[in-house]
Amino acid sequence: MAKVGIIMGSKSDLPIMQEAADILDYLGVSYEMDIVSAHRTPEKMFDYGRNAHKRGIKTIIAGAGGAAHLPGMTASLTPLPVIGVPIKSRNSIDGWDSILSILQMPGGIPVATVALDGAKNAGILAAKIVAVGEPELMERLVEYIDELKEAVLKTAEELK
Amino acid sequence: MAKVGIIMGSKSDLPIMQEAADILDYLGVSYEMDIVSAHRTPEKMFDYGRNAHKRGIKTIIAGAGGAAHLPGMTASLTPLPVIGVPIKSRNSIDGWDSILSILQMPGGIPVATVALDGAKNAGILAAKIVAVGEPELMERLVEYIDELKEAVLKTAEELK
Amino acid sequence: MAKVGIIMGSKSDLPIMQEAADILDYLGVSYEMDIVSAHRTPEKMFDYGRNAHKRGIKTIIAGAGGAAHLPGMTASLTPLPVIGVPIKSRNSIDGWDSILSILQMPGGIPVATVALDGAKNAGILAAKIVAVGEPELMERLVEYIDELKEAVLKTAEELK
Amino acid sequence: MAKVGIIMGSKSDLPIMQEAADILDYLGVSYEMDIVSAHRTPEKMFDYGRNAHKRGIKTIIAGAGGAAHLPGMTASLTPLPVIGVPIKSRNSIDGWDSILSILQMPGGIPVATVALDGAKNAGILAAKIVAVGEPELMERLVEYIDELKEAVLKTAEELK
Amino acid sequence: MAKVGIIMGSKSDLPIMQEAADILDYLGVSYEMDIVSAHRTPEKMFDYGRNAHKRGIKTIIAGAGGAAHLPGMTASLTPLPVIGVPIKSRNSIDGWDSILSILQMPGGIPVATVALDGAKNAGILAAKIVAVGEPELMERLVEYIDELKEAVLKTAEELK
Amino acid sequence: MAKVGIIMGSKSDLPIMQEAADILDYLGVSYEMDIVSAHRTPEKMFDYGRNAHKRGIKTIIAGAGGAAHLPGMTASLTPLPVIGVPIKSRNSIDGWDSILSILQMPGGIPVATVALDGAKNAGILAAKIVAVGEPELMERLVEYIDELKEAVLKTAEELK
Amino acid sequence: MAKVGIIMGSKSDLPIMQEAADILDYLGVSYEMDIVSAHRTPEKMFDYGRNAHKRGIKTIIAGAGGAAHLPGMTASLTPLPVIGVPIKSRNSIDGWDSILSILQMPGGIPVATVALDGAKNAGILAAKIVAVGEPELMERLVEYIDELKEAVLKTAEELK
Amino acid sequence: MAKVGIIMGSKSDLPIMQEAADILDYLGVSYEMDIVSAHRTPEKMFDYGRNAHKRGIKTIIAGAGGAAHLPGMTASLTPLPVIGVPIKSRNSIDGWDSILSILQMPGGIPVATVALDGAKNAGILAAKIVAVGEPELMERLVEYIDELKEAVLKTAEELK
Repeated sequence: MAKVGIIMGSKSDLPIMQEAADILDYLGVSYEMDIVSAHRTPEKMFDYGRNAHKRGIKTIIAGAGGAAHLPGMTASLTPLPVIGVPIKSRNSIDGWDSILSILQMPGGIPVATVALDGAKNAGILAAKIVAVGEPELMERLVEYIDELKEAVLKTAEELK
Repeated sequence: MAKVGIIMGSKSDLPIMQEAADILDYLGVSYEMDIVSAHRTPEKMFDYGRNAHKRGIKTIIAGAGGAAHLPGMTASLTPLPVIGVPIKSRNSIDGWDSILSILQMPGGIPVATVALDGAKNAGILAAKIVAVGEPELMERLVEYIDELKEAVLKTAEELK
Repeated sequence: MAKVGIIMGSKSDLPIMQEAADILDYLGVSYEMDIVSAHRTPEKMFDYGRNAHKRGIKTIIAGAGGAAHLPGMTASLTPLPVIGVPIKSRNSIDGWDSILSILQMPGGIPVATVALDGAKNAGILAAKIVAVGEPELMERLVEYIDELKEAVLKTAEELK
Repeated sequence: MAKVGIIMGSKSDLPIMQEAADILDYLGVSYEMDIVSAHRTPEKMFDYGRNAHKRGIKTIIAGAGGAAHLPGMTASLTPLPVIGVPIKSRNSIDGWDSILSILQMPGGIPVATVALDGAKNAGILAAKIVAVGEPELMERLVEYIDELKEAVLKTAEELK
Repeated sequence: MAKVGIIMGSKSDLPIMQEAADILDYLGVSYEMDIVSAHRTPEKMFDYGRNAHKRGIKTIIAGAGGAAHLPGMTASLTPLPVIGVPIKSRNSIDGWDSILSILQMPGGIPVATVALDGAKNAGILAAKIVAVGEPELMERLVEYIDELKEAVLKTAEELK
Repeated sequence: MAKVGIIMGSKSDLPIMQEAADILDYLGVSYEMDIVSAHRTPEKMFDYGRNAHKRGIKTIIAGAGGAAHLPGMTASLTPLPVIGVPIKSRNSIDGWDSILSILQMPGGIPVATVALDGAKNAGILAAKIVAVGEPELMERLVEYIDELKEAVLKTAEELK
Repeated sequence: MAKVGIIMGSKSDLPIMQEAADILDYLGVSYEMDIVSAHRTPEKMFDYGRNAHKRGIKTIIAGAGGAAHLPGMTASLTPLPVIGVPIKSRNSIDGWDSILSILQMPGGIPVATVALDGAKNAGILAAKIVAVGEPELMERLVEYIDELKEAVLKTAEELK
Repeated sequence: MAKVGIIMGSKSDLPIMQEAADILDYLGVSYEMDIVSAHRTPEKMFDYGRNAHKRGIKTIIAGAGGAAHLPGMTASLTPLPVIGVPIKSRNSIDGWDSILSILQMPGGIPVATVALDGAKNAGILAAKIVAVGEPELMERLVEYIDELKEAVLKTAEELK
């Protein structure tokens, strides 16, 4: 049973959103992936948002570009934390539209926004959220912080 | 029976959105007004979007601020033209978030966006759209263009 | 007899503006296309704006880039709804100039602005406006919304 | 024992950050509050970040303005999810600096960013994260979504 | 007979545009002032642009805010140099719309743009242009440069 | 004897600035061209600015990119009108730095700013300024406006 | 004999620039203050820039707003490090013009830019630079870092 | 013994940061280079910041991109002047995030920010700072200013 739901507004968002899946694989967190368009399949979005927590999903990652309504609309439909990934899609103005239409949610309906095209970080954030109820996953995340450190120290060594 | 539907995401948008109602009154076009929040009352938004054209509404004016999803989500639910009014609400960043999250809609789902806080122009645009099927309203709009001209010419005269 | 007038400031805008024509063909709405420059052929723009509604045109789509004055100036000359397409032309600063000089019209003279390079959406919006007076075209648009949904659902199926 | 840690870079951030505390009170989630400056008390920040999860804290809300380093630096020190609140402080350029220096974190170190001055939403997001391990809190959040809806419907009623 | 024509899109631009008149008075250059709206009185704009050089006007100062089309449209109608003053009017987004819709003119139709609300500088620039054909006015401008220097040196003295 | 002085901050600006020279050639206005760096050859800039009008130069075109100080500094040294060309040079942030550091001059020292990389328009503006004292050049400019119109009309014809 | 030279483009910059003087007083570093306008007193700027290091000045703080040329021009004239303070003056567009025209200097001529209106930080930076040759001043700066820490810790204590 | 410390957040910043090293070589100033990540190796950053001045380092150049915290965090740990280089890294939004998160430091903790990708200027600024205590290096910098001038004059000669 998947713990993280990854949804995106269009198939063209897949190359970016795959990075969320990859890091969840690496950290050992189960997930599911689907295309759900706020504007083209609003009923599917409603079903997804309303029922995800009933299926055991712990957090939802939603990626979209341009006037990106999927993360915010999903957040309005679920008690789960929703992580938004602003995508610099073909029709985006340098990413500003994607960022602002995900980040600037009104009071009552938060979206946990990550960096532009930051799907990898969305995956790590999802793992951190799942880890709130799973001590062994939190251990894994403490290790991951060490892995990041070791990688930089090794690169620094090579520079010399 | 109202020809123009005016909706807004929050009661705090009313002072701006009232300008749309006022100009429609002036031009003699019937309208209705309601508060419909994309994020707080998504079901109401669905009902509104799905049924407006069945009730004889010809065009919908939707105003919202910040991560403004109401105009675009409504546009995804109706065959009617939707006019979006970006509002510089309290939680808006100089209006940029409102503008971009209304304007930058993906292919397939247009929103006819007007200027920031431009509810008056939204009302005029709605009248122009209604006038497509009503020749006498188009005559009224030709007159209105003349009224605008006369007002400027009179001011210019006073300057001298 | 054409129902939609598509005009653009320069031949270099044609690749973008053709998308408006293509979707109008697809939706079965007649149109005409012309190059009208606000700055280089102001008289032609005057004639076009003043007479379009007399020739049976129901709405005008105007595309331009940089300091884009064609949509707004045309809107000042006609009682018809004018749809503006901001184009990210060679001399545009990431599209911001095109967007702002079309969107931010003064009170009295609205332009229905669509997304940057959003000519396809301009075509759909034009069809929605024409449909105000043509019930069978509105039916076609209801179908189109379904087509968009089916296309996304099919792609989602393939992802699995 | 507090489940949410609220920290801020300066006492001047308190009026905004208090909104996070208020909504947590309302939702019945325990919290603690402290001033921790990335630039003025870096050791305290280190201690806080390194030990929060050992004290039972489930998620950290960090607010800061201008070149806002507190959320990101804290995120680099803890396995817990960190929620960042960009604050439009006195030395901020319309909030853009606060937003970008919190949102645009490098791969590996996510910060769950909310809207400018969006401390209330940060509190709700924290509750949603805590609820991942507490079913009764998730029930409370489902209720909260209904409360939001009822409030809007009541306002809409008054408009009529 | 006036040598400089000062026009503005709306009476609300007068407090700013008056600064152009004041500095022209100070420098001893004759001028005329009028309200000419690109969108509300397009015929008057045409007449003004087409005939100004025939009446002995040497340069035109045009001020406008928001989607500011007056300077560019006037420039398309006259062989005279046109100076554009972007005005941060009520409906302007921090002045960016005014600046970009005046500055970013297409090849062939220049507008000499000055700073936001920079009507005083527009007046000085107009005087510099008129001085191209009037040596004694150029002498006056050389003096003016000295006056600016003396004023600063005096203030610097007071600081000590 | 040259009537227009074209200066630029670096040889890398030449491909853009050549367009000013080309249009002046086309319009039959004499010019001279030089590299003058505000930051690397400040004395040369002083000499140039102080003496240009004594050599018969009627207007100066100055192009520069990034923190572009050449146009404004030159304007502070000469009674002649100075035309500034913001250049999107290698070290420029999308041209915004070039535009703002040329456009936003303080009261007293105007720079006639043209569009980003708008050297062709700078050349035409220079010709318009020179024409203030030369009726036959103004005739040439009236013709040029007609040439622009004819070119667009011909392209429009081809579209059909 | 002053070790730090503080200059500003206009007397209106004094309230901001005084903060640089105040912190230098606090840290025990001698300074002098003057008004030097790049555009109105270019010769004075030349003299100042060329001679400051001969008079024993170790670093120069230059503040200016709008198209702010004083810091960069001074930097081109002196071998000393120049610290630039972008000032959000009356004619500035939210400070962006001041920042970009100081920060984005071309290769060869650095300006050490601080935050918008950041004169206090300019003073501290100047003290850090002077301290390169004065070990006891560096001791003072180590103390200052501790003072900043103590002030925050005390405030944090009061919060509890 | 190195006088300048060059650090960067990631190996991918090396091509830009190498320009700082190259100009320091050219000016004859010793330096050291290392990779220190604020977010991945915070302890190393602490050690570096706390001890650099004890090892004889006179100034630190720190480069980073996106939410760039390395320059500001290092500045909070050392009494030395810290020069920040905003880098337009892969995850940066046109460089704005890098610039603002380095430039907009709070009162008390200055970072001497240079232009986007301006590592060469960071190197020159470092040399100017080191020269505060070394008269012969200041002589070298006076020469360097002349070299810049000669290079431009030679290019100007070639243009003719």
